[in-house]
Amino acid sequence: MTTPGPRITALAGGIGGARFLRGLLTHLAAAYPDGAGSSTAEVTVIGNTGDDIWMHGVKVCPDLDTVMYTLGGGINEDQGWGRLDETYTVKAELAAYGAAPDWFGLGDRDLATHLVRTRMLTAGVPLSEVTARLCERWNPGVRLIPMSDQRVETHVLVDDPTGALTDDGSPVHTAIHFQEWWVRYRASLPAHGFVLMGLDEARPAPGVLESIRDADIVVLPPSNPVVSIGTILSVPGIREAMRSTSAPVVGLAPIIATAPVRGMADACLAAIGVETSPTAVAAHYGARSSGGILDGWLIDTVDAESVDCTEALGITTVAVPLLMTDLPATAAMAAAALDLADRVKARP
Amino acid sequence: MTTPGPRITALAGGIGGARFLRGLLTHLAAAYPDGAGSSTAEVTVIGNTGDDIWMHGVKVCPDLDTVMYTLGGGINEDQGWGRLDETYTVKAELAAYGAAPDWFGLGDRDLATHLVRTRMLTAGVPLSEVTARLCERWNPGVRLIPMSDQRVETHVLVDDPTGALTDDGSPVHTAIHFQEWWVRYRASLPAHGFVLMGLDEARPAPGVLESIRDADIVVLPPSNPVVSIGTILSVPGIREAMRSTSAPVVGLAPIIATAPVRGMADACLAAIGVETSPTAVAAHYGARSSGGILDGWLIDTVDAESVDCTEALGITTVAVPLLMTDLPATAAMAAAALDLADRVKARP
Repeated sequence: MTTPGPRITALAGGIGGARFLRGLLTHLAAAYPDGAGSSTAEVTVIGNTGDDIWMHGVKVCPDLDTVMYTLGGGINEDQGWGRLDETYTVKAELAAYGAAPDWFGLGDRDLATHLVRTRMLTAGVPLSEVTARLCERWNPGVRLIPMSDQRVETHVLVDDPTGALTDDGSPVHTAIHFQEWWVRYRASLPAHGFVLMGLDEARPAPGVLESIRDADIVVLPPSNPVVSIGTILSVPGIREAMRSTSAPVVGLAPIIATAPVRGMADACLAAIGVETSPTAVAAHYGARSSGGILDGWLIDTVDAESVDCTEALGITTVAVPLLMTDLPATAAMAAAALDLADRVKARP
Repeated sequence: MTTPGPRITALAGGIGGARFLRGLLTHLAAAYPDGAGSSTAEVTVIGNTGDDIWMHGVKVCPDLDTVMYTLGGGINEDQGWGRLDETYTVKAELAAYGAAPDWFGLGDRDLATHLVRTRMLTAGVPLSEVTARLCERWNPGVRLIPMSDQRVETHVLVDDPTGALTDDGSPVHTAIHFQEWWVRYRASLPAHGFVLMGLDEARPAPGVLESIRDADIVVLPPSNPVVSIGTILSVPGIREAMRSTSAPVVGLAPIIATAPVRGMADACLAAIGVETSPTAVAAHYGARSSGGILDGWLIDTVDAESVDCTEALGITTVAVPLLMTDLPATAAMAAAALDLADRVKARP
């Protein structure tokens, strides 16, 4: 006899989201065992594609691939992105031709994924179907859907890196691709803002809105609230679906004390004028009761004193350990998120 | 004081052509030294692109690359094609995705060339310019021009490899790409003929006709007379240029006794009803004096008894050692070809 598990929909960026999802699957396999080592729960992941980039003629989808490789056992654990046992022969050869860009870590194994994807995209197959096809190899244990089949690319407004000045002596503002800002400049160029190219033409990919509407629980992993979760929410229709779903929506703070759990979320938050604190991020998402998207919020125990502040926003808040130090710790975070969802749902 | 060297134009396929050209450059550097280790001669190579193939979304030009890598010091000497110190990581990953085809030796280093080429082609840069750009890295010491900037692909008519039969019980004829026939089936499926897809729309690439017209000597290396030289000659305008150039045209037999110097030229000759012998190939090319393209023909010393037969066709014929056993032997072949050109030219 197996217990039917919940239908869970998660919005996810790259490394942080992928690691949280692995903990979630581990927890679900224990809580709702299917008798075959997995769980009876159904997990749908809506992946950020705003940091996708065309490079050397191939389409790279860093966040989708990080989720796919992490859950499919192909990730480089140490760096959190890219393939295990990766080599960089093609990259070195491209550099020998002087082909730009040379700052992206395009691995040989990873490149095969991009080649398969690009070939299908060029043949007219939508990204959501391509992603499903790639996942047939990796069996990530979730249904992974890109936020949109249309091309949406995050660009970052920065002072021109060449030092160009306007007539009045102030720096020229230039938009560079998010990957260039993130990977090449390590987010060290102050961002004046983000521009989501193509957003007006974008629609949620097939299954995205349904998975939010029909979920038992919607989860926001500790992904970047600006360039990962924020980008997904910007696709027309997705934020509205989050507001109107009958499922409880719970999130995990990507900030502990005043530092990002990982990555450079602080640089992104600063660009949109949000303080780097778990409470400020919760306020940025907003309570569903006030037109926002959150019912519940997990913060780290070191931030326990902020519980009252976040509760005052109308968001049920619980403090638990939020460092994904290992898989058991991450599974415990996922369990806490599901507990919080139950608590929110039981609320009158 | 340097002696101006001749302007030489060669038509070339892959391995055999490339190795001959290396011998030619070695001979020229000795005969017409420029004082800097190279020669004052100018060599233009018109490369076969009939065996080009789109594969995994990239454009592969096997013959152009074999010439470029061989003359540029990047070739795998043992196999004669592909890159030195090659790895096959991407190929293995593509196979893990089940991406077809899996029978082509797509190396990692080689793939970088295809990526650079494909990106430029997709941006609208013609293949001839792309090739020149790639050669900037390799410095092959020749001007390498594809026979055409338009896509021309050699397909081979064979009995359907699946064994399909027509209503009357005879094998269904199927056209497969030359590479599939050559690499996957090792030319073991009897060829009923060759079809050059796209030929009607093809024009010689910029510089091709001029290089034949303005040459001091035109050379046909011992490349495959059907699917390499034959394909180049099929591009509208090229055969006519060969007939009308004021330069002597000399060729080297790709057949010694009754066997190809290398490769599977016999299978190709059989498909077009030409015997596998140096004389039959000469007759197939034809004497310029009778509407063909040859003034002179080098055959191997083991075939010396055929000299009279070929001379009777109106083609000046000389027997010399034609095995490209090493670079000095190959340079001697090139020297013999240039001597023969002089002799033909001096003829009243």
